[in-house]
Parts: sequence; C-alpha cells; structure tokens
Amino acid sequence: MDILSIIEKKKRGGELNAKEIRFWIDNYCKDEIPDYQVSALLMAIRLKGMTKQEIFDLTEAMMHSGEIIDLSKIEGVKCDKHSTGGVGDKTSLVLCPMLAALGAKVAKMSGRGLGFTGGTLDKLESIPGMRVILDQNEFLDVINRVGMSIIGQSQEIVPADKKLYALRDVTGTVDSIGLIASSIMSKKLASGCDCILLDVKYGSGAFMQTKEDAEELAKVMVEIGVHFGKDVRAEVTSMNQPLGKAIGNILEVKEAIDTLHNNGPKDFTDLCLSSGATLLMQAGLYDNRDEAINDLNNVLVEEKAFRVFRSFIKAQGGDVSFIDNPNKFPEAMYFLPVRSIRTGVITSIDTMEIGLSSMRLGAGRETKDDIIDMAAGIVLNKKLGDHVVKGDLLCTLYTEKPNMNSMVTDVMNCFFISDDDSYVAPNVVEERISLDKETGEFIIEKED
Amino acid sequence: MDILSIIEKKKRGGELNAKEIRFWIDNYCKDEIPDYQVSALLMAIRLKGMTKQEIFDLTEAMMHSGEIIDLSKIEGVKCDKHSTGGVGDKTSLVLCPMLAALGAKVAKMSGRGLGFTGGTLDKLESIPGMRVILDQNEFLDVINRVGMSIIGQSQEIVPADKKLYALRDVTGTVDSIGLIASSIMSKKLASGCDCILLDVKYGSGAFMQTKEDAEELAKVMVEIGVHFGKDVRAEVTSMNQPLGKAIGNILEVKEAIDTLHNNGPKDFTDLCLSSGATLLMQAGLYDNRDEAINDLNNVLVEEKAFRVFRSFIKAQGGDVSFIDNPNKFPEAMYFLPVRSIRTGVITSIDTMEIGLSSMRLGAGRETKDDIIDMAAGIVLNKKLGDHVVKGDLLCTLYTEKPNMNSMVTDVMNCFFISDDDSYVAPNVVEERISLDKETGEFIIEKED
Repeated sequence: MDILSIIEKKKRGGELNAKEIRFWIDNYCKDEIPDYQVSALLMAIRLKGMTKQEIFDLTEAMMHSGEIIDLSKIEGVKCDKHSTGGVGDKTSLVLCPMLAALGAKVAKMSGRGLGFTGGTLDKLESIPGMRVILDQNEFLDVINRVGMSIIGQSQEIVPADKKLYALRDVTGTVDSIGLIASSIMSKKLASGCDCILLDVKYGSGAFMQTKEDAEELAKVMVEIGVHFGKDVRAEVTSMNQPLGKAIGNILEVKEAIDTLHNNGPKDFTDLCLSSGATLLMQAGLYDNRDEAINDLNNVLVEEKAFRVFRSFIKAQGGDVSFIDNPNKFPEAMYFLPVRSIRTGVITSIDTMEIGLSSMRLGAGRETKDDIIDMAAGIVLNKKLGDHVVKGDLLCTLYTEKPNMNSMVTDVMNCFFISDDDSYVAPNVVEERISLDKETGEFIIEKED
Repeated sequence: MDILSIIEKKKRGGELNAKEIRFWIDNYCKDEIPDYQVSALLMAIRLKGMTKQEIFDLTEAMMHSGEIIDLSKIEGVKCDKHSTGGVGDKTSLVLCPMLAALGAKVAKMSGRGLGFTGGTLDKLESIPGMRVILDQNEFLDVINRVGMSIIGQSQEIVPADKKLYALRDVTGTVDSIGLIASSIMSKKLASGCDCILLDVKYGSGAFMQTKEDAEELAKVMVEIGVHFGKDVRAEVTSMNQPLGKAIGNILEVKEAIDTLHNNGPKDFTDLCLSSGATLLMQAGLYDNRDEAINDLNNVLVEEKAFRVFRSFIKAQGGDVSFIDNPNKFPEAMYFLPVRSIRTGVITSIDTMEIGLSSMRLGAGRETKDDIIDMAAGIVLNKKLGDHVVKGDLLCTLYTEKPNMNSMVTDVMNCFFISDDDSYVAPNVVEERISLDKETGEFIIEKED
C-alpha cells in the first residue's frame, strides 16, 4: 500500500477501503506522508466525495489517532452537545445547567474562538478565577458533584484532526461535508458521551450557507453517531442573525446569566428549551417533549439552572460574586451607538460581518495568538423582523480601542431595512433530525 | 491576490485569469508558495480542467519562468521535433540528419531516460567521446556548420516545469492534458524553433493509453503553438509495439546507423519519412508531400543523411570510428533468447512491460541516480502481425547482470500470440494534425 495509489484511486472516483484510510491517517500523523501528498488527496476527496462507508472509516481512523475518554466513572447518562459555530452562541452556558438541573450529566469539551465565531472557553475565562483546563479526574469529579462540567478539549484527543484541519485551512479543502462530519464526530465520539445533540447552523453567520447543506451535514453526522452505537440527533438552526442580543465574552456571560434568571432573549431561550428537551429525551429522562419543555421552563423560573451554573463556576475556581452581581464585570472603555438611517423592517442581517466586526472591536481572534478584550463586543437592540424608525438604536459597539468610529458605518451596513411589512422573522430551530434504527430512515420534525 | 483564493476559484470550476496564473507560477518558483498549496491546486486543475485560455496563460507563465533561447544566429528555418516518449524511440538520431541533409536547420534539446522510456542523450553518450552538454555558442556553431545539433536541455529553460513536474509525479497529478500540454509546449517554445513537430504516442508503451487521449493532447499542443505564432503540427503514432526492433542505448544507436544506411526496420523508417516530410513542408522547403518523401528516401539511399550524422557526432567530440564500424561497440556479457511457446500470430505486445524489462536488464533508470549499462537491452526478432512457430526466437535480452534468467518468462509473457489469421498490424503514423489559421479548424489527415 502506498499513498500515491490511494491518491490515484480517489482521483478516479474510487472508494477507499478501511485499510487504505487507516494507512494514510496513521502515516500522516507519524509525519511519514508529507503535507503535499495529503493536500492533493484532500482536494480529490473534496471534489470526488466520500461514500458513507468511507466517512465511517475516516471517522474511526481519526478517532483512534489519540486518546478515547472513559466516562464510566460518571453515574447516569452522559450528555454532550455540539454547535457548528455562529455569532453570539452562548448556548452551552445556559443549556448545560438546565440539563443538569433535571438529572442529566453533561460532560462537555469546548473550544476557543477564531475569526467570526466566539468560543465557550473564552467566555468562561472572562469570569475571574475560572479554570477550564482540568485533568480527567477533576473533570469527572465536578460532573459527579455538580452535574456538569465544561473544559478545554484534551490535546490527546484526535491529534489527526488538528494536523488535518490546519492543512485543510490553507488548501481550500475545508468545505467538504464528509471531512467536516468526520472531523466533528471523531472528536465527539472520542469524548465518550452516550447522547450527543448536534446544533447544525446555517445562514449568513454560519459555515454552512444554506439550509440544504446544513441538513446534509446533520444527516451524515447523525448516521456516523448511530453507526458507532451512540444516540446522536441534530437540530438545524438559523444563524441568519446573531443568537440572542449579546456578542463578546463578558457581554455573552451576562446575557447567559440573564437567561438563567428567565430573563433572556426569546430566540436564545427557545433554542435552549428545544435542545434541552431533545437531549432529555435522548437520555431517557423524558418520554414527552411538552413535559420536558415545561420542566425546563420551570428550572429557569425556579432558578434551579442558575444554581447549577453557580456551583459549576465555583467548582472550577470562578469568582461567583460576578455571577451573583454581574455589574462587577468590567465595562469597555468606549461605547459606540449604531443608529438606523431609515425607517422600515429589518429583513436581513449580515451576521458573519457582525461577527467579524465584534472580532475587530477586540472580542475575538484574527489569528490564534491574538489576545481578547473580554469586555469588547456588540449588543443588538433590534433583531430580524423588528420595525425601526430612522434614528433608532440598532446596536451598541463596545471596545477598548480608540478610533473605532469607522466601524459604526460598517456595522450599520450589516442591517438591511426594507419596506416589506409582510416579513416574518424565522424560528431559530428549523427542524430536528434523528435516525430510526429499525428502518434506517431519517425522522425529520419541522418546527412550526 | 493570494493562493488560497486561487485554489478556491479553481476548486469551484472557475477560470483563472493570466494574472492569477502568473502569480502562482512565479511565487511557487520563488518558494513563496509551499508545495502543499500547489498540490491542492494541481489536483483541482486535474479534476476541474482548464480552458484554452488558461492553458495558453499557464504555458506563457511557465515559459517566462526561465531563459528563452535566441536562435536568430542560425541561418534558415529552425526545426524541432518532440516525442511524448515510448519504447525503442531513436527517431531523433535518424530524422534530424535526414532533415539537415535537405537544408533544414535542426536545433534539438533532448532529455534522459527514466522508467520505461529511453532518452536520446543517453543513446548519444553510448558513443565514446560524445558531448551532449554544449554552451549556446557552440550549439549554434554546430548547427550552422553541420545543419543539426542535439544537446541536453539547458537548466535555465522553464525551471517552473522541473519543480512542478517533480510535485505532480508524487501527487497523482501527472495525467492532466492541460498540464502535460503546457509542460511540453513551454519548453518547446522557450527552445526558440520556428517549426515544431510533435509525435504524440499512444498505446501499451506510451503515457497516453488511447488514441482519443493522444489526439486531444495533440490538438491542445498544436493550438498552443499556433497561439504563440509558431508552426506547430502533430502526428498521432502507435506505441502498441516498440518502435523498430532495438531497445537499449548501444543497440538503438546501431539500429539508427543501419537505418541511415537505408537498412532499418520498416516501421521506424516509415515514421522518419512521414515526420521528415511534415517538417520539411512546415519549414517551407517543400510544397508537395510525395516529393519530400521521395527526397528523404534518397538521402538515405545516397548516404547523405548518414554523412550529416557522422559530421554531427564528430562536431560534438564523438569517436566516428564507432559510427563507421558499429561492430566496435561493446557487446553485453549475457545473451538470453526468448522463444515462443506456441504457434500463431502476434496480435499484442505489452510494450510498457518490455520497456520496464529493458530497464531492469540495465538499459534504463528506475530512479534518476541509477547508472545505465550502455550495451544492455532487448532486440526484437518478431513484431505485431508476424507469424511465429513454437520455438521461434521472439527476441533476445542483453545484459551485464548474471542471473537474469527469470526475465525470459517475463518478456515472453509480453507477447500475445493468437490464432487470428485476419489480424493486421497497425501503421505507426495514424494521423497528422494541423490547424488552419484562417478558419481556426483542425485539419486531420488519416494515414491509410
């Protein structure tokens, strides 16, 4: 077996077998196959596609390139959720405590922000004292005590993905459904949870631009999960506007706390309720969706989820006085209001550009080594479907950098305001996808 | 402009413009773009193709990556021929003297053998004293005095091709018509001749397996040539059996000398006459093909071409006593006869395997650093369409290596002997392709 014949086979549209896939993954990880051969193979995969079996085999080969986390010391059903990334996505901060408050065990490994997307770890680290790097015993201990933990992904998990992703990023081979699915799923499977909910986002602030692409990716990932014996389901959600109103680390933590006090933005709360109900049913804790949603609502109203969140922050060293009194968080030096220059209805928001603007204000990283201003970001005052009058506040920019006035126009141009009074803003959750193990058919529930 | 957006554009099937093509070729040559990005781009080109304009622009960018030879000091029309490579292809050794004997100036830069194909330079170097590395002045001087010269390609010509070819070779991106055409034509155009004849081979001993692929490649190269203002034509020729009977350096030189004495194998002599007539008409020295063929025949009969060859060898330091008396050439230590094990008609010859066998006997290089045994090789006794009786000599293997007996069976298995008495061996030259500059249409002359 040699890499050149593997490249030739894929180039001609052939199906690689499990041995061939293990060969190239293993030898690439050992630096025995050079980047230039793997990038040619990746482009052939991007253009010729992979069969289901190839995607399963690639996921398995990648999963076995590193450590597989053993969560057997956690009592109960281990739950995980994964979002494909968007703008203002602080879901884990609220959803995980809601689940734990109802008896699920949430063992979540998260990432950092890059480019237009934020990262859960960065958001957590805006809380003074908060530690997101725990060893495995401490991670298990926090979950057993509090019901949840969120930590940085172990460096030992799926090293193949780190190496491959870095290469895909510079060779135009990121946008392959099979490569994306195996990258995400190899990490999720190696993280050891029983039930996994995938939030696959599409739209102007997501990697997947269309709902069709998001649905395809969701289906492939669900199939991978089921193939490996896990309960994996997906939600296809709209990222045609930022989730909630806050973008930026401290700003999002404050919005998460508001939401845990049952005082959050409707779209964000709705997503947490929907995802929560799905995961509770996956975990076998509920049979009935309405009942689950009702109880999830109650853990917000009764502050149970907030108390879990507080315990979790405390267990990982965070200063809970900031959780109890969010006004203690530092505020950015500069506030820049962005006002509408016309009257009408907001029918579209360039969400990726909003995410990039937040990054430029200091809230995100353009390259891995950039340092984040925790207080920087954007808070929306208006969202899709809102009527605005000329002069109305659309959003406020927060930054530590002087001379960012030119950003006001940039961000203003992200809001498309029309005279179309008939426009109705879309739901966040568009559909839920699962696989019927008996029939092998997908079950797709559309949200009304 | 950046390489990633160029990769993205090609991946999506877009057409790169001249600026983008120059950008990636120039920066790759300067080592400012890494191999792994270029190999991804090459795979995208292989799978998405290139438009005519892209191929022209790529040829031009590659051509300008190095020196362009100035042949203006040569009086008369400068002619060149190029073969895409095959087994037993010693055409240049005979065709160039035939052309020079009739007044054409032949300025030819050749290569060395690798894998199943031999190289003209290696064949020439089997003549003691022969120098194939001349500086440009000496090259021009030999052509002006003798009418022809064959030398190694200048290292300064199209450096982009060396770098690119090395990468294509290890990334499964060799077999792209556009990349092959621009690689060949950039070198031919940089070599400075006015008239270029391309011998595009197809079949079991050629890079192009089918006649259709060869025809497509031929057409693209002719179009490139005409686009750059040269008279470029092509012949599509069969490489379904070795050309002539001899394979291996000294063996081929001896067959070339025989042919120059009008005593060569029919298929090889036919090819030299056909290519010669085409090039003489390209050069404007003849209007009438039959007349050209008649005169080419005469330069063989009258030994005029042989005398040019002798002068050429002498001018480049070769010991002409070997040309005058080919028996002086050393013979290989071991002769291994390969005999037929059945009676019938030879209807197919695995020509690539014959070429590889000759290489293994010592006549060729498996890697660039291998040393050639000049006397090694294979001489065929039978060719396609020949009737053989069980026990007949099919060919003889020549080698300096002991213990090569197992090769006898390998080579025997390259001959397919059938009972099909109706089989007729194909012509060498199948068709000639040129472009009508007025109409832009191809003119294809089929050989009967």
